[in-house]
Amino acid sequence: MDIATLVGLLVGVGLIGWAVVSRSDLTSFVDVSSVAIVLGGSSAAALVSFPLRHVSGVARVVKNAFFARPPEPDKLIGDLVKYAEVARRDGILSLENMTKNIDDRFIVTGIQMAVDGTDPELIEQIMSSELESVAERHAAGKALFDAIGKYAPAFGMIGTLIGLVIMLQHMDDPSKIGPGMAVALLTTLYGALLANLVALPIADKLAVRSQEELLAKMIVVRGVMSIQSGDNPRIVEQKLMTFLPPAQRAKRGEGRDG
Amino acid sequence: MDIATLVGLLVGVGLIGWAVVSRSDLTSFVDVSSVAIVLGGSSAAALVSFPLRHVSGVARVVKNAFFARPPEPDKLIGDLVKYAEVARRDGILSLENMTKNIDDRFIVTGIQMAVDGTDPELIEQIMSSELESVAERHAAGKALFDAIGKYAPAFGMIGTLIGLVIMLQHMDDPSKIGPGMAVALLTTLYGALLANLVALPIADKLAVRSQEELLAKMIVVRGVMSIQSGDNPRIVEQKLMTFLPPAQRAKRGEGRDG
Amino acid sequence: MDIATLVGLLVGVGLIGWAVVSRSDLTSFVDVSSVAIVLGGSSAAALVSFPLRHVSGVARVVKNAFFARPPEPDKLIGDLVKYAEVARRDGILSLENMTKNIDDRFIVTGIQMAVDGTDPELIEQIMSSELESVAERHAAGKALFDAIGKYAPAFGMIGTLIGLVIMLQHMDDPSKIGPGMAVALLTTLYGALLANLVALPIADKLAVRSQEELLAKMIVVRGVMSIQSGDNPRIVEQKLMTFLPPAQRAKRGEGRDG
Amino acid sequence: MDIATLVGLLVGVGLIGWAVVSRSDLTSFVDVSSVAIVLGGSSAAALVSFPLRHVSGVARVVKNAFFARPPEPDKLIGDLVKYAEVARRDGILSLENMTKNIDDRFIVTGIQMAVDGTDPELIEQIMSSELESVAERHAAGKALFDAIGKYAPAFGMIGTLIGLVIMLQHMDDPSKIGPGMAVALLTTLYGALLANLVALPIADKLAVRSQEELLAKMIVVRGVMSIQSGDNPRIVEQKLMTFLPPAQRAKRGEGRDG
Amino acid sequence: MDIATLVGLLVGVGLIGWAVVSRSDLTSFVDVSSVAIVLGGSSAAALVSFPLRHVSGVARVVKNAFFARPPEPDKLIGDLVKYAEVARRDGILSLENMTKNIDDRFIVTGIQMAVDGTDPELIEQIMSSELESVAERHAAGKALFDAIGKYAPAFGMIGTLIGLVIMLQHMDDPSKIGPGMAVALLTTLYGALLANLVALPIADKLAVRSQEELLAKMIVVRGVMSIQSGDNPRIVEQKLMTFLPPAQRAKRGEGRDG
Repeated sequence: MDIATLVGLLVGVGLIGWAVVSRSDLTSFVDVSSVAIVLGGSSAAALVSFPLRHVSGVARVVKNAFFARPPEPDKLIGDLVKYAEVARRDGILSLENMTKNIDDRFIVTGIQMAVDGTDPELIEQIMSSELESVAERHAAGKALFDAIGKYAPAFGMIGTLIGLVIMLQHMDDPSKIGPGMAVALLTTLYGALLANLVALPIADKLAVRSQEELLAKMIVVRGVMSIQSGDNPRIVEQKLMTFLPPAQRAKRGEGRDG
Repeated sequence: MDIATLVGLLVGVGLIGWAVVSRSDLTSFVDVSSVAIVLGGSSAAALVSFPLRHVSGVARVVKNAFFARPPEPDKLIGDLVKYAEVARRDGILSLENMTKNIDDRFIVTGIQMAVDGTDPELIEQIMSSELESVAERHAAGKALFDAIGKYAPAFGMIGTLIGLVIMLQHMDDPSKIGPGMAVALLTTLYGALLANLVALPIADKLAVRSQEELLAKMIVVRGVMSIQSGDNPRIVEQKLMTFLPPAQRAKRGEGRDG
Repeated sequence: MDIATLVGLLVGVGLIGWAVVSRSDLTSFVDVSSVAIVLGGSSAAALVSFPLRHVSGVARVVKNAFFARPPEPDKLIGDLVKYAEVARRDGILSLENMTKNIDDRFIVTGIQMAVDGTDPELIEQIMSSELESVAERHAAGKALFDAIGKYAPAFGMIGTLIGLVIMLQHMDDPSKIGPGMAVALLTTLYGALLANLVALPIADKLAVRSQEELLAKMIVVRGVMSIQSGDNPRIVEQKLMTFLPPAQRAKRGEGRDG
Repeated sequence: MDIATLVGLLVGVGLIGWAVVSRSDLTSFVDVSSVAIVLGGSSAAALVSFPLRHVSGVARVVKNAFFARPPEPDKLIGDLVKYAEVARRDGILSLENMTKNIDDRFIVTGIQMAVDGTDPELIEQIMSSELESVAERHAAGKALFDAIGKYAPAFGMIGTLIGLVIMLQHMDDPSKIGPGMAVALLTTLYGALLANLVALPIADKLAVRSQEELLAKMIVVRGVMSIQSGDNPRIVEQKLMTFLPPAQRAKRGEGRDG
Repeated sequence: MDIATLVGLLVGVGLIGWAVVSRSDLTSFVDVSSVAIVLGGSSAAALVSFPLRHVSGVARVVKNAFFARPPEPDKLIGDLVKYAEVARRDGILSLENMTKNIDDRFIVTGIQMAVDGTDPELIEQIMSSELESVAERHAAGKALFDAIGKYAPAFGMIGTLIGLVIMLQHMDDPSKIGPGMAVALLTTLYGALLANLVALPIADKLAVRSQEELLAKMIVVRGVMSIQSGDNPRIVEQKLMTFLPPAQRAKRGEGRDG
C-alpha cells in the first residue's frame, strides 16, 4: 500500500473534519441529496465521456496502482543479472526451470520466448506491445480521475444553483434564507473536496505510478533481450544500470564490491 | 447504441430532476426564454465558428458515433484471416465473389482494389486518405461539441446578467426580487448542465469512438495489404494481432487452439 | 458571403434582443459610456499588443475571409487538368494566352513562371513563400480576434468594478443602488457578448477559412509543378485528387465517367 | 517610438479616466495603499520568480523594444546587396573601410569576420549564438511581463480580501460599509488594469518585436555568409528576398526595375 | 543565498503586513484553524499526488536551489581550460593529483574517468545520465511547488465555504454575521498568498536555477570530453565559450588579452 496516499487522504479528511467540528457539528455538513448531485452527476458525466469498459476497469487500475507496487528497479536488475549468469553457465534452456519460481508474469513470458528461441525482433515487438498496452490502461485510469476532477466542481456549482433558485423562490420566511443558502453551498464544498483532495491528486499519483511500472517493464525487456543475445552478465548489469539514477547506481556498485 | 452514454445521460438528468422535485416543483425550473438564450446563443456562436457544412454534418457524425459501433477488432481480424485463407487456397480473384456478402464498404473497396491488381502503394495511399478523412470528420464533430461546451456557460452567464439588470432596474417591489433573481440564475444552471452533462462528455466520447474506428480501419488496411502480398494466413493473423491489447491477444490465441 | 456567419450573428443578436424586449425595454440596456469602455478598452489593449500594420490590415483579412470564398478544390482541379491538357496538346507556351482569362493571380503567377521556363525548384520556393505569407496574414487576423475575445471580458469586468465603486461611494440614497448596479453590470454583459458572440467565433471561422484557402493554394502549387514537368493530364488529376476527401473524389470520378 | 503602443496606452487610460470623471471624481479612485499592494505585490512575486539580473535587465529590453526599431528588412537587404557589389568589384578587403560608416554592430562584426577570412562555419556559429542570445533576452523580458500579468490580478484580489475582512470586522457603523467596500474593490480594479491594459499587451508586443529583430538578424547572417562566399550581388539579393513577404518582394522588384 | 528571492518574499510579506496594520490590527488576520486548513489541505493533496520520496526530497532540492549556487559558467570554463593546460603539459595522468583540490564532485568524477582511460562514449553516457537525473530531481521539486500553487487556492475556497455554511446556519444574531464572514474569507486570503507569493514564484525560480545548473554540468561534460581527447587548451576554451552569451564571451576575451 502506498503510504503517502493513505496519509494524505486521512490528513486531508481529518483536517476538514476538525475544522468543522471545532466550530459547528458535523451533521449540519452532511446532506444526502447534495452528495447524490455531486457524486452522481460527476459519475454520470464520466459514463457519457468514456466507454463502459474504461469505467468498469478503473477499479482494477486503481487497486494495482495503490497496492501492487512495481518491483524495485534495483532488485529487478539483480534478478535479471542472476538469470543471465545461469544462462551463461548452464545454457539458456536451463532458465525454463527457474520460471516456475518467478511471480512476475511479464518476466516469465519474456524468458519463455527467449528459451523457445523466438526471433529477438518478435520478442521485442510483443513485449513492447504489452508495455504500450499497460501504458494505455494507466492513461485511461488517469483520464477518468481527471474527468471527475473536472466535473465534480461543475456539478457542485449546479447543485448550488438549484439550491439558490429554490431558496430565492421562497423568500417569504426570512429565517429560512440562511439555512437554505447553507445547504445550497454544501454541493460546491463537496465538489471542491472531491476534486482537490481525491480526484486530481490521485490522477497525479497514477501518472507517477505508471512511470515507475513502465520503467520496470522496460528494464525487463532490455534484460531479456540481453540475456537471449548471450551477453556476459556484467554487460547485462551495465546495460540495465543506465536505467537507474546515479545515486542508486553508486549504492548498487558499492553493495556489489562490498 | 452505446449503453454508457444513454445510462450516463439518464442518470444525470434523473438525479438533477430528483434533486429539484424532492425540494421544489419542476415547473419553477422551466423557463422558455432562458432555454432560448442558452441553446440559441450557443448554436449561434457555433454557426459563426464553423462552416455550415460542419454544423449540418454533425448529426450524421453523432448518429454514427453512438449507433454504428465499429466492428470488434477481434472479429475483424478473424474475417481478414478467413479472406487470406481463401486467397491462399483459391487465388486472390476468388475474393471478388465474397465481397458481395461483406457489409463494410471499406473492406470491400480494399479487396476490390487488391483483386484488380492495383499497385500496392496506390492502395495504401487511397485507403490512408480515406482514413484521414474519417479522422477529420470526427475531429470536426468533436470541435463542434467542444465549442458548445465552451459557449453554453458563457451564454448562461449572459442570460443571468440580462435577468439581473432587469431585476435591479425594478427593485421597487421587494417581493419580486427573489423570484426575479431565481429566473436570472436559471440560464447559468442551463448553461452548466448543457456543457457538463451533455456537450463536453459527448466530445470526449466522440474522441474515444474515433480512435476505435480508426483502429478498425488501420487493421483493414494492414490486412488487405498483407492479403495482396500473398502472405500466409498465419502471418496475416500475427501481423494484425499486434494491434490488439495483450489480454485480447491471449484470449484469441486460446480460442484458436481450443 | 458566408451564410453561417451572417445567420449566426443575426440569430444571436436577435435572441438576446428578444430576451430583453420581452421582459423590459431595450433603452435600459444601452449605455454609451459602457460601450466605450468595453469596445475602446479592448481596442486599446489590441493596439498595444500588435503593431499598427496588423491592426490596420485586419479589415482586409476579414473581408477576404467572409466574402472572397476560396475556389472549390473540385473546380480548381478541373481547371488545372484542363491547363495540363492544353499544355500536353499545344505545348506549355500555349498556356500564356490562357492566363488572360484566369482571375486567380496565384495561378497566373505560377503558370507564367512555368511558361518562362523558371527552374522548378525556384517556382516551388516562390509559391511556397507566398503560401506561408498568406498563412501568416491569416494567423495575424486570428490573433487579433483572439486578443479581443480575451480582453473584452476583462474590460467588461473593469467597467463593472468602476460602476460598483461609484455606486458604493454614494449609498446614501437606497433607491439608486439598484439602477446603479444595473448600469455597472452592463459592461460585463457587453464584454461577454463581444467575446462569445463575435470575437471568439470569428477567430475560429478565420482558422477554418485559412485552412481552406491554403488547401486551394497547395493544390495550385502541386498542379503547376506537375504541368511544368509535362505530366499526362490523367496523372495530374490523380495527384491532385489526393487532396480531396474520398466522398468528393468519388463524386468527381463519377462525373468524369458519366 | 512605437506609435501603436503609445496610442493604445493613452486611449485606454483616457477612456477609463473619462468613464470615471464623467460619473464621479478621480480622487475617490486613487488609493495609495491599494497601489502599493498591487504594484508591490506583483513586483515581489516577480522578484521571487526570476533572478535579479532578469529583472534589472528588463528596462533595457523594454527600451530597445519600443524605441530602437529593428532596421526595415527591405532597407537591410539593399545595404547588404550594396556591400556585396563593393566586395565583388573591389575585393572583400575593401569592405573594411565601409564598416566605419555602419551603425549596426551586428553587421560590422559579421563583415569584420568575413574580411579577416574567418572560417565560414565559425562565422555562422558565432552569429547564430548572438542571435539565440538576443532571442533569450527577449524571452526573459516577455516572461517578466507575463508574470506581472498573472500576479497583478491575484494581488488585486488579495487586496480586496484584506479590505473586505477589515470592513466585515467593523460593521457597527452601516454608513461605512459602502465606502469600505469601494476602497476594497480598488485593488481588484488596479490589478485588472495593470494586467489587461499594460502587462499582457506589452508581453504580446515584445513577442512581435522580438520576431522582427530576429528576422533582421537572420537576414544579416545569411547576407554576410553569401558575401563571403563571393556570390554575385543579384544572387545575394535573390537569396535574401526569400525572407520578405511577397507583397514587399514585388514592391522591391518594381523599385529596382524603375 | 539568492538575494532576489529573499528580497521578494520580504517585500511581499512586508507590504501585505503594512496594508493590514495601517488600517486594522494583525491579530484579527491570524486564525490558526484557517492556517491549518490551507497549509494542511494543500500538503495533504501534495502527499496524495506524489510518492513520499518526492515530498521528503524536496527540502534538499529547495536548499540546493537557493543556497548552493551553481558555479559561474565563466569561472568553470577557466578551471577546465586550466586542467586542459596541465593535461597538455604533464600528461592526463597528472590531473589525478589535482582532483583532490576540486570541490565539485561532478568534475572530479569526470576527470577520474578520463584519467582511468574509460571509453569516451561511456564517460559521456554516465555523465549525461547524471545530468538527466539532476534535471528530473529539479522537475520533481518544481512539480511539488506547482501542485501547492494549484491546491492552496482550492483549499482556501474550501475553508471559506465551511465558514460560510457555519455562518449561514447561525444567522439569528446579526452582529455575528460580519465577523463570521471575515474569518471565513481568511482562508481564501491565505490560499491566494501561499500560491501567488510563495509557491508559484518559487516554482518559477526553481526552473531558472535548474537551467543554470544544467548549463554548468553541460559545460563540464563537454570540457572533460575535450580534455580527454587531448584538445589544445585554446580549442577547449573555444568549444566551451559557445555556451556563453555573447556579452560574457566578449568580456572573457578582453580579460584574457588584458
